[in-house]
Amino acid sequence: MKRSEFTQIILHHHMPTEPQQTRATAFAPINIALSKYWGKRNSELNLPVTSSLSITIPTKGSKTTLVWTSQQTQDSIVFNGEEIDRHSVLAQGITQFFDLFRPTHRWHLHTIIETNIALAAGFASSASGFAALALAMNDLFAWRLELSTLSMLARLGSGSATRSLWTGFVEWHCGQRDDGMDSYAAPLLEHWPEFCVGLLDIRTTEKPISSRKAMQDTMNTTSLYSCWPEKATHDIRLLKHAIDQKDFSLLGSVAEQNALTMHAIMLSSWPPICYFLPDTIAAIQRVWALRQTGLDLYFTQDAGPNLVLLFLKKDANTVKQSFPNVEIVSIFDDRIKP
Amino acid sequence: MKRSEFTQIILHHHMPTEPQQTRATAFAPINIALSKYWGKRNSELNLPVTSSLSITIPTKGSKTTLVWTSQQTQDSIVFNGEEIDRHSVLAQGITQFFDLFRPTHRWHLHTIIETNIALAAGFASSASGFAALALAMNDLFAWRLELSTLSMLARLGSGSATRSLWTGFVEWHCGQRDDGMDSYAAPLLEHWPEFCVGLLDIRTTEKPISSRKAMQDTMNTTSLYSCWPEKATHDIRLLKHAIDQKDFSLLGSVAEQNALTMHAIMLSSWPPICYFLPDTIAAIQRVWALRQTGLDLYFTQDAGPNLVLLFLKKDANTVKQSFPNVEIVSIFDDRIKP
Repeated sequence: MKRSEFTQIILHHHMPTEPQQTRATAFAPINIALSKYWGKRNSELNLPVTSSLSITIPTKGSKTTLVWTSQQTQDSIVFNGEEIDRHSVLAQGITQFFDLFRPTHRWHLHTIIETNIALAAGFASSASGFAALALAMNDLFAWRLELSTLSMLARLGSGSATRSLWTGFVEWHCGQRDDGMDSYAAPLLEHWPEFCVGLLDIRTTEKPISSRKAMQDTMNTTSLYSCWPEKATHDIRLLKHAIDQKDFSLLGSVAEQNALTMHAIMLSSWPPICYFLPDTIAAIQRVWALRQTGLDLYFTQDAGPNLVLLFLKKDANTVKQSFPNVEIVSIFDDRIKP
Repeated sequence: MKRSEFTQIILHHHMPTEPQQTRATAFAPINIALSKYWGKRNSELNLPVTSSLSITIPTKGSKTTLVWTSQQTQDSIVFNGEEIDRHSVLAQGITQFFDLFRPTHRWHLHTIIETNIALAAGFASSASGFAALALAMNDLFAWRLELSTLSMLARLGSGSATRSLWTGFVEWHCGQRDDGMDSYAAPLLEHWPEFCVGLLDIRTTEKPISSRKAMQDTMNTTSLYSCWPEKATHDIRLLKHAIDQKDFSLLGSVAEQNALTMHAIMLSSWPPICYFLPDTIAAIQRVWALRQTGLDLYFTQDAGPNLVLLFLKKDANTVKQSFPNVEIVSIFDDRIKP
């Protein structure tokens, strides 16, 4: 099935196919997977091999405004105040996303994106981008779709966007169906007010390799990938148990091992895929040294050099002292800042 | 079977059990595995899960002199000119090795070791140490054992010592037998005069974790290890083909992926085992950047932070320019320097 067929099924004949108002704005946060999404069973529909589980960073994300006028003859995009070349990767991604909803090209949009995160540096920028886009389109077209359905639309733009429509812990169910209609996300009910993360910005240059390509190369070139599906499935079970029991050491150790296993599998690919920079290793070793002293500190790392530290509120000061550049977010306390 | 039973079988009733002369000296080189020894099927007898294949670094190693006098009442060791405390790890290792050959403790030796490599920093110091010890004992006791048999005795001291009795390419056959009598090494016949290595000393402090313990923890705590045996077996086949065909790119890529896979598996263990230092990653990325420019340069990494660069003689100057601190060894040209 093509992505455009998928959207046609979602937007069946009752739904508006043209904008119903001239302007819509939505914010979506970034999320950091505690058990990673790594590997697709269907790359056209972005269907994952395994489920994944994330925590939303409510203070970071993308605010997207869609402006529609009937005079507009092509899409235009302003990103953080700057007009974006329509041949850029960002513009192409957005235009192709719109194309999924306009087989006859009857409308064009002016898109204004404001984000407070670095692009393509392992802080899930595309996740919040496509989630915000799906939310804004839902509003502009007055579709009134449920969030779970919108998460499937966001998924077509970027897999991890599937999880960026809620706060707190979110699970993306991999689903079983070939048409991907059961591959959507849902929030877990548990709150954990003591839960904190620390964003550790190692470097904000662009990645050496996109996570899309890294994922594909991994699946094709290393035998270690065969262990991943079972590992990820097991880890999600453990994470849910840890969240339910508020067992932070269990959560932290499972999340850290899950991330390291993903990076390990990439490292064993050919050519090798390595998102570690020297400073990443230095920071990782600082985490381990602190943990040796008894601090309940863990990390996770997406497909980029940055780390996300995981700890409880009581340890926030210690973490800040050890990592002066860290940006601490209290996951359940800090408000979304659109 | 106990290690001491193993040695009793090797040294059956015809063999001298007391020194036959007052002094014997032997040199053994270090070796660097191109397909690693990682994981034991029997830790008492140091029997590996898979075969492994190494290249000998003929200019680096240990020269060991054993001195016997009937007056000596306990073992004593001088290492690089310094008397070693008998409770140190090094002294204990040597004394316990001697114990395998003296159930009744009728003799003691003064051991003088001179080495030109850093200890326990991933340049296979214990491999050359136990190989030299086995060679010197063979001489001191006038056993006249074959090298393949001596490689099994060296194996009891340190697995990788099994491969340190020859120059060039050496294969350690894992063997099948429970008593380990078929787990010994043998040299490959092929010469490859253009083959060079570059020793890149990242840091010479001691390892955070011994390779013995790392190996054990890996096997116990990560599901990725299950992929290793097949991978290693496949890699040895490819390496032998590459050596036979003098296909350097194949050899380099297989060796590099093999090493990264071993480190990947360690990284996925819990607690994580990481021999990468920030400078290791920086050097690895320099290798990759040079390879991008067309240079046929690869690396391997043992259980330590150091790298061993792999390249052909024609590229030695380029490598030296890019890594000013590298120590280049022409594997088949440079002489053993005892």
